[in-house]
Amino acid sequence: MKKLKLGFPKGSLQESTQELFKKAGVRIYTSERSYFPNCDDEELEIMMVRSQEMARYVEDGVFDAGLTGFDWICESGAKVKEVCELIYAKSGFRPVRWVLAVPKDSKINSVKDLRGKRIATELVSYVKKYLAKNKVKAEVEFSWGATEAKAPALVDAIVELTETGSSLRANNLRIVEEVLTSTTRFIANAKAWNDPWKRQKIENLAILLKGALAAEGMVGLKMNVAEKDLKKIESILPALKRPTISKLDMQGWVALEVIIEEKIVKKIIPALKRAGAEGIIEYPLNKVIY
Amino acid sequence: MKKLKLGFPKGSLQESTQELFKKAGVRIYTSERSYFPNCDDEELEIMMVRSQEMARYVEDGVFDAGLTGFDWICESGAKVKEVCELIYAKSGFRPVRWVLAVPKDSKINSVKDLRGKRIATELVSYVKKYLAKNKVKAEVEFSWGATEAKAPALVDAIVELTETGSSLRANNLRIVEEVLTSTTRFIANAKAWNDPWKRQKIENLAILLKGALAAEGMVGLKMNVAEKDLKKIESILPALKRPTISKLDMQGWVALEVIIEEKIVKKIIPALKRAGAEGIIEYPLNKVIY
Amino acid sequence: MKKLKLGFPKGSLQESTQELFKKAGVRIYTSERSYFPNCDDEELEIMMVRSQEMARYVEDGVFDAGLTGFDWICESGAKVKEVCELIYAKSGFRPVRWVLAVPKDSKINSVKDLRGKRIATELVSYVKKYLAKNKVKAEVEFSWGATEAKAPALVDAIVELTETGSSLRANNLRIVEEVLTSTTRFIANAKAWNDPWKRQKIENLAILLKGALAAEGMVGLKMNVAEKDLKKIESILPALKRPTISKLDMQGWVALEVIIEEKIVKKIIPALKRAGAEGIIEYPLNKVIY
Amino acid sequence: MKKLKLGFPKGSLQESTQELFKKAGVRIYTSERSYFPNCDDEELEIMMVRSQEMARYVEDGVFDAGLTGFDWICESGAKVKEVCELIYAKSGFRPVRWVLAVPKDSKINSVKDLRGKRIATELVSYVKKYLAKNKVKAEVEFSWGATEAKAPALVDAIVELTETGSSLRANNLRIVEEVLTSTTRFIANAKAWNDPWKRQKIENLAILLKGALAAEGMVGLKMNVAEKDLKKIESILPALKRPTISKLDMQGWVALEVIIEEKIVKKIIPALKRAGAEGIIEYPLNKVIY
Amino acid sequence: MKKLKLGFPKGSLQESTQELFKKAGVRIYTSERSYFPNCDDEELEIMMVRSQEMARYVEDGVFDAGLTGFDWICESGAKVKEVCELIYAKSGFRPVRWVLAVPKDSKINSVKDLRGKRIATELVSYVKKYLAKNKVKAEVEFSWGATEAKAPALVDAIVELTETGSSLRANNLRIVEEVLTSTTRFIANAKAWNDPWKRQKIENLAILLKGALAAEGMVGLKMNVAEKDLKKIESILPALKRPTISKLDMQGWVALEVIIEEKIVKKIIPALKRAGAEGIIEYPLNKVIY
Amino acid sequence: MKKLKLGFPKGSLQESTQELFKKAGVRIYTSERSYFPNCDDEELEIMMVRSQEMARYVEDGVFDAGLTGFDWICESGAKVKEVCELIYAKSGFRPVRWVLAVPKDSKINSVKDLRGKRIATELVSYVKKYLAKNKVKAEVEFSWGATEAKAPALVDAIVELTETGSSLRANNLRIVEEVLTSTTRFIANAKAWNDPWKRQKIENLAILLKGALAAEGMVGLKMNVAEKDLKKIESILPALKRPTISKLDMQGWVALEVIIEEKIVKKIIPALKRAGAEGIIEYPLNKVIY
Repeated sequence: MKKLKLGFPKGSLQESTQELFKKAGVRIYTSERSYFPNCDDEELEIMMVRSQEMARYVEDGVFDAGLTGFDWICESGAKVKEVCELIYAKSGFRPVRWVLAVPKDSKINSVKDLRGKRIATELVSYVKKYLAKNKVKAEVEFSWGATEAKAPALVDAIVELTETGSSLRANNLRIVEEVLTSTTRFIANAKAWNDPWKRQKIENLAILLKGALAAEGMVGLKMNVAEKDLKKIESILPALKRPTISKLDMQGWVALEVIIEEKIVKKIIPALKRAGAEGIIEYPLNKVIY
Repeated sequence: MKKLKLGFPKGSLQESTQELFKKAGVRIYTSERSYFPNCDDEELEIMMVRSQEMARYVEDGVFDAGLTGFDWICESGAKVKEVCELIYAKSGFRPVRWVLAVPKDSKINSVKDLRGKRIATELVSYVKKYLAKNKVKAEVEFSWGATEAKAPALVDAIVELTETGSSLRANNLRIVEEVLTSTTRFIANAKAWNDPWKRQKIENLAILLKGALAAEGMVGLKMNVAEKDLKKIESILPALKRPTISKLDMQGWVALEVIIEEKIVKKIIPALKRAGAEGIIEYPLNKVIY
Repeated sequence: MKKLKLGFPKGSLQESTQELFKKAGVRIYTSERSYFPNCDDEELEIMMVRSQEMARYVEDGVFDAGLTGFDWICESGAKVKEVCELIYAKSGFRPVRWVLAVPKDSKINSVKDLRGKRIATELVSYVKKYLAKNKVKAEVEFSWGATEAKAPALVDAIVELTETGSSLRANNLRIVEEVLTSTTRFIANAKAWNDPWKRQKIENLAILLKGALAAEGMVGLKMNVAEKDLKKIESILPALKRPTISKLDMQGWVALEVIIEEKIVKKIIPALKRAGAEGIIEYPLNKVIY
Repeated sequence: MKKLKLGFPKGSLQESTQELFKKAGVRIYTSERSYFPNCDDEELEIMMVRSQEMARYVEDGVFDAGLTGFDWICESGAKVKEVCELIYAKSGFRPVRWVLAVPKDSKINSVKDLRGKRIATELVSYVKKYLAKNKVKAEVEFSWGATEAKAPALVDAIVELTETGSSLRANNLRIVEEVLTSTTRFIANAKAWNDPWKRQKIENLAILLKGALAAEGMVGLKMNVAEKDLKKIESILPALKRPTISKLDMQGWVALEVIIEEKIVKKIIPALKRAGAEGIIEYPLNKVIY
Repeated sequence: MKKLKLGFPKGSLQESTQELFKKAGVRIYTSERSYFPNCDDEELEIMMVRSQEMARYVEDGVFDAGLTGFDWICESGAKVKEVCELIYAKSGFRPVRWVLAVPKDSKINSVKDLRGKRIATELVSYVKKYLAKNKVKAEVEFSWGATEAKAPALVDAIVELTETGSSLRANNLRIVEEVLTSTTRFIANAKAWNDPWKRQKIENLAILLKGALAAEGMVGLKMNVAEKDLKKIESILPALKRPTISKLDMQGWVALEVIIEEKIVKKIIPALKRAGAEGIIEYPLNKVIY
Repeated sequence: MKKLKLGFPKGSLQESTQELFKKAGVRIYTSERSYFPNCDDEELEIMMVRSQEMARYVEDGVFDAGLTGFDWICESGAKVKEVCELIYAKSGFRPVRWVLAVPKDSKINSVKDLRGKRIATELVSYVKKYLAKNKVKAEVEFSWGATEAKAPALVDAIVELTETGSSLRANNLRIVEEVLTSTTRFIANAKAWNDPWKRQKIENLAILLKGALAAEGMVGLKMNVAEKDLKKIESILPALKRPTISKLDMQGWVALEVIIEEKIVKKIIPALKRAGAEGIIEYPLNKVIY
């Protein structure tokens, strides 16, 4: 039986990626003790490695494909095929940001001010390139952890991951600028991408993962509408979403159903109600494929 | 940008309230370290305080609105606008009860028997009013915790929160009577309620929260029915729920769909099956707005 | 009020069984401290006992019905009515296996080689019968735990539960053969089964539990299809699943809806898309009753 | 190199036994994952098994010696050499008790009243012998856990381990009588005991373990005493403990030192002070060998 | 048998108090589930209550004696006999401090600046008295927790417990002044103090607890000294500590032993060595009674 | 006030180092949230950094002194003054080992066989030097964690830390050879070492830490000996340890006291007893300074 060797991210992306695969229809059974999780898709052979190491092993063909952050792909410098972007990260369906941060009372106000300074980061190669692009010479050192605590005692500035900024604030740091925005990427090895069976397997996975991710922020909305109110109701709905309208057994009424973003739903529900929609229900989705 | 200052309950109501907001379409990102959670609705500015303190801060306008238990609203004596009742509490979609409890072999059998006794409770003000209403003079003292363990060693009776009664039984206590039944309330500051923008924001939130809560105990039920069986099937369904009936492509059959309480579903499914319904499925709902 | 005395499995099956009951519409509120969980079905009186002890207490009528593994029913030798099989176990919707395992370099290659050997297991009675059936005389001893660590230091072979085999591998053991495959069973006391009220209550529970379990691996699939593509689309769907087709308001298009296994969905979605299906969505189900 | 195969109790005795060995001078490094702990005495080869299984494996010679509770030695019926008693158990330096307990309002008041009743216990064999000795016929069934919760719902009485009785009280049970008192025993295999090297190794371990255990409840007491007060001071000390008295450089004063039980110390310190002792200090001991 | 009813502090002082009693020779066996711990001194009857509630119950005679913080004695206003001060608190052998703290950029710089402000604290009564003494009128409100997070969002200032100040810093607060310094106190009920048996029992406990606490910061120091160096060595030792000097068997040498504070030891050890002391050892103490 | 800036190891060495400082007389109060622990020695200013980064910051003078493993000093290549070796590591008073390990069935049997292979390790620089010294060209890649799981799936060999070898065994790896043995080192910055005050402070700390560490494996042994048995007893004691002998008040008896390694004690106690020693006690030590 043919197998696709898939690298699975261990660590901060692990839980959310496992959840996404489950929604995509692939159950992955991880265990504290093993780096080789079981899975219910027999065509997959999965190994877990840290996000930091993924791109390297995909480039070398140890894995046919893998999932990791854009940040670590950049850092590794590995040459891999990006199959698709998946907009989620450590703790939610949004990108993470790597920012240049300094102590609140530092005189550093832009990347230019880093000249001759000392910067701690986990993203050493990328930050060096970033400084070079900005024509700044500075010392960049690898941080083994607790990067936020290092400025100003140990270094002048840091480049660190942030989501809400609360950890930076707690350490009395101020964001100077954004260095890199990162989401998860599904990547493939160049040779595997040229193998027809592997490529189709990878593409099928990509469709399912994108379908599952799309469903995350979307919901189904269903309501009963009198035919006379239909125009009004449709004008409230977002223009690009064509609703499905089906006849009801009850004279003069139709059922309207539409797939829509959850963040829009919460804004239009009061308007729909005022416009005469009845029995409005919202239901969850597993996958949405356009 | 306009902001609604919202008080969010820290502690026993926190997790369920966060879950409810998520279903209502508002994701709140809490953190162990911060009392100022992030959220994906930019019009909200959220701070967490204990349920006990909420009403006071809403009354004073520190918050425009907040969520807390009816018990603590009573205890605080604060004057706030109750926007809506939300029927959930610490551990489920049902009220909690504050009861007067005494040791199993106590001679106290009604509130009247408390005359001259000593009562420990977290709800000191409310219990004092309750005793006054019953024309009983007794000593009420504030309990900092472990109230159940206090009778009879330290006090004669307690007034304490109970859900299943198991903690009372474990401490050999007997319920004498119910003192207060409490659910969660969405409350608003009087001045904020008179501000049109704030009021609409509060009302929209209330619609979404009620819609999400209504969906908790409800499900969608869908089945295929031969037209000849339709009457019989409809008679099994609860009288007040008008099902949506749509024509199927298959001659003589219709699809019947109804939104219904889960606790009714589990009682009627066998009957529906016997009456000829086919392919019965039940699906979950996110929100239900009538 | 009539009550059905129901034994509920404490331990490895507890969480998944509680989840299944919730989907079936029965909320069970367990507590670390009590063996008598509350529940929102007043006709049930629930007590938790270990899976190992369930069949015995159902046989004796202490419980009218209960849920436990087939393995422990066999081990107990108790005579109970099996109401239905429920295909789930400790950690997933699939059976567990009890296997005969030996150290990797052992000379034991079949049950026949066990003659005169020492075997540790939690399933002493069943393994003794199994050896007798295979006409092998060997010593079987009860293992109080950590069975995998016992071979070869303490015994020659073990009969132990396995799901993925990873714990066996970690202890350098090799599977010789499968001794027993087990799923969960809903069992009833003979006398309770003959009581009409109890039997109907048990059967109703069985319908709901089976409906909830069926829904676990199934999803709803809905899409818009041009009438000209309908044949092609239907040929992609599994032959036995007749889809529900309803007319849309839009000329020449129908809505196609089908309840289908999730593991099939993930295989056919790309084909459906290529065949012209639009707006494909997949939604979750709570119960499926055929 | 010669090795003594030592069985080490996994579970409730594990931590206290490991602590005792450390005081005796043998550091045992356990790990969650392994049943073969490392240790800094190269003549020991240690394996962990449950207390319940220890005696059986010592009897069979799989281990040369082991530590387990007297209760489980009795239950197993294994023939082993008892090297010494070590007075500690699950949670302290005192025996544990197995008691016959019944619901508070049960009519059972002595073992005699068990005739025809049903008893749950983990100690099936021992309880059967105990009933036989008392000439009572009753049904004894093995309990897989949560024994206290079983009476009266599942059985009439239980025989269960108790330390403070609080778990019994919490389950509304009453102690009828004590069935067995148990402490830890150091046991040896008969053949190992006859091997001179192994016997000496076992005896040396026994001396060190007893020395370490003796030191647990004992302390060193040291004070300066004027020679004129010496008689008075000595009369306060326990009669059997001869103190060490050494001359001090200071004219007319001696230093008095005595090894004494901690529970006596706390009673006599005030008296010693009143009798003129100065600079009283108490210091901890690792081992005491008489 | 006579019993002393002793209140034991539940919560932040619990662990350190239990440890202190153990050193004093009284083992107290607590359990998560029970508020009535067992203990190996049969003359004690112990109940655990929160530190906040202790003084009240000692004043009323529910307890004969108890341990709690000076802060909560003040707050309660209870009239109790203070038997002795025990210098330890929540996390170490030093007092805790309640401080007035404000946001870093607040204009409040002394208690005088609080006029008309709002202050959150757990110590409402004490703070009110403190303000009255300073002739400041301000609003003091009870804080149910997370007091540090309340300024400036909810209040202008807080009065809160601090040990290292790190929690204040993390919340961007600045200490204005110290309001109260607190250590643990052993307190007695007035009537119990007049009962000869109870008073002696309380005093004996006090001696042992003080002896155990004194030993915490003290150690035994022992060394061999040539008689010719004795003067020099003695001059390095603190003046008030008279060492015990005993003759050694070796001509011209004596053994010098002294009980001394650990924080002095670490300063003088290099000097002792240079002055010729040999074989210096430091050993731990359980109790020190002068 | 003068301050010594001290780097304290965060992570695997943290707990044991904190314990060692406590024994040395310096209490360090760490907190989950802060990298700047408080301490009761006002002349110390402590910051926690990872062991991997320590030497770099000591070399650069960010810290005057610090504690870290020899392995990470080598890896960093930093030039620092080694003040003293402290023989403890992650989990005990013994060195840790970095070993070259390969899959059990690998053909690699010595470092020479690594030619052209791929090796994962956290110690990249050191391993590269090690290979160069052995004249082997191979690819060394940095491992972000879970190194044991990487061979053979991702690499041919690993260089990894091991204590008992159990983690290697669990991953089916075999040790080829030892690459580096490491203990903790107290290191100083060159400039700080030349500052008289700082140097003395560092040396004093070194004396106390070494004294505390020496006490770890040593105990005090005390016994009463009849003068006639003294020679015999002394011959049992290790030759280099001269015991302290003091006259007792009892005619013909002396007290013998000796500081000795615990691992010797456990071997000679039976012999001492047989030779007539009485009342043998062993007591713990805090510090031992020769």
